[in-house]
Amino acid sequence: MRNIKLTLEYDGTNYSGWQTQKNTPNTIQEKLEKALTSINKNPVKVYGAGRTDAGVHALGQTASVMLDVLIPVDRIPMALNSILPDDIICSMAESMDMDFHARYDAVGKKYRYRIYNRVIPSAFSYKYVYYYRPQLNLSLMREAATTLIGEKDFCAFRAAACSASNTVKTITSIEIIDKDPEVWIEIVGSGFLYNMVRIIVGTLIEISSGKIKLEDIDIILKSGDRKLAGYTVPARGLTLVDVYYN
Amino acid sequence: MRNIKLTLEYDGTNYSGWQTQKNTPNTIQEKLEKALTSINKNPVKVYGAGRTDAGVHALGQTASVMLDVLIPVDRIPMALNSILPDDIICSMAESMDMDFHARYDAVGKKYRYRIYNRVIPSAFSYKYVYYYRPQLNLSLMREAATTLIGEKDFCAFRAAACSASNTVKTITSIEIIDKDPEVWIEIVGSGFLYNMVRIIVGTLIEISSGKIKLEDIDIILKSGDRKLAGYTVPARGLTLVDVYYN
Repeated sequence: MRNIKLTLEYDGTNYSGWQTQKNTPNTIQEKLEKALTSINKNPVKVYGAGRTDAGVHALGQTASVMLDVLIPVDRIPMALNSILPDDIICSMAESMDMDFHARYDAVGKKYRYRIYNRVIPSAFSYKYVYYYRPQLNLSLMREAATTLIGEKDFCAFRAAACSASNTVKTITSIEIIDKDPEVWIEIVGSGFLYNMVRIIVGTLIEISSGKIKLEDIDIILKSGDRKLAGYTVPARGLTLVDVYYN
Repeated sequence: MRNIKLTLEYDGTNYSGWQTQKNTPNTIQEKLEKALTSINKNPVKVYGAGRTDAGVHALGQTASVMLDVLIPVDRIPMALNSILPDDIICSMAESMDMDFHARYDAVGKKYRYRIYNRVIPSAFSYKYVYYYRPQLNLSLMREAATTLIGEKDFCAFRAAACSASNTVKTITSIEIIDKDPEVWIEIVGSGFLYNMVRIIVGTLIEISSGKIKLEDIDIILKSGDRKLAGYTVPARGLTLVDVYYN
């Protein structure tokens, strides 16, 4: 048995998210398990670092799998890519210690949220961006973003459906990058609550539009009240870019 | 009546090409005519500059249309984009002289062909690129490309189905651009025969692989024999980038 770390890229548009659950067919996990099982002797279970939602994409998702097949580790990506659908790619495979776990050993993640900030939309990127027409005030958003950096209770920035018992998370950095006609918001943190990135982005957009005031961010954080934070921007703009390990 | 020039961007993946013909539903032209007719008083006929094939994309396709609706010309893109499918975008509308015709007045076109030249494919761009694994020899391809520049008879570089009576065309430039992991081949010319760009690209790839020799290009041109030129690369890598007018 070998413990393999996979690095994965996928277009989440046509999937109901990462995680296989009862009554949710067509997940990324399911496609991977099917492909891996077809090259392995025994059925393979995949443990992903991040459970991306329906429509969310990945450039650097990671997963750990136990394999008994004797294929050299550097041949695994090509073997998998010849079986996987075109919109799921394994970009790397590495042999790890037997106790490595893609999810429990992850010490941080980087997400990118792409906003298409122009009057005329794009025929090519609409599945990967959130189309927002009014011109964004990037300097105001950057100022607001700095108040979210650090170890904080992000209870106000999670979906109602979130069941995490600990809502304290550390955000290491929020970069707001001008990629005219797009604006990219890149957030690095120790961990994220359900919908946390999408609510932070919605809050920064409402800071730009003036609906939320700069000085309100601290009040929102302290309140722990989801209703005070901004709206949840659509899943399609979100990409899991990287997962960090020690 | 006003004569309007439209500039159009589309993802050709889900369409059976530009032109509406008997027994080919789901064309770009059909979607545009439907959208334009819904904002106009009378049915609208669209004349496109280039009849892109099924799966071919556009960033700067142009079309001319006669409209009697009184909407200001700069509001036409937004009005159309609110009706058109997400993968067809009108990026510009301009008022023209009544005798302007998008196809007959075009003096040149620029096409881009995207090759994805890496062992690991991409989960995001597979609809817009041709995945070719062996490393391309760009300097050899550039050398071959220069022998195709100028006014030549491109009879050997057209699909069997091409019915054009005049096969002499002028290629102004062929640029081979390193966009690692992609290679872009950008071809500007006065006009193009059916599948000509895709056969030129296939020929340049076979120059790189050694299947066709550099000195054979002249022989292929003189022969007028389709069988001597390279293969026809897939439609999905091709984009109509620009249409030129005097």
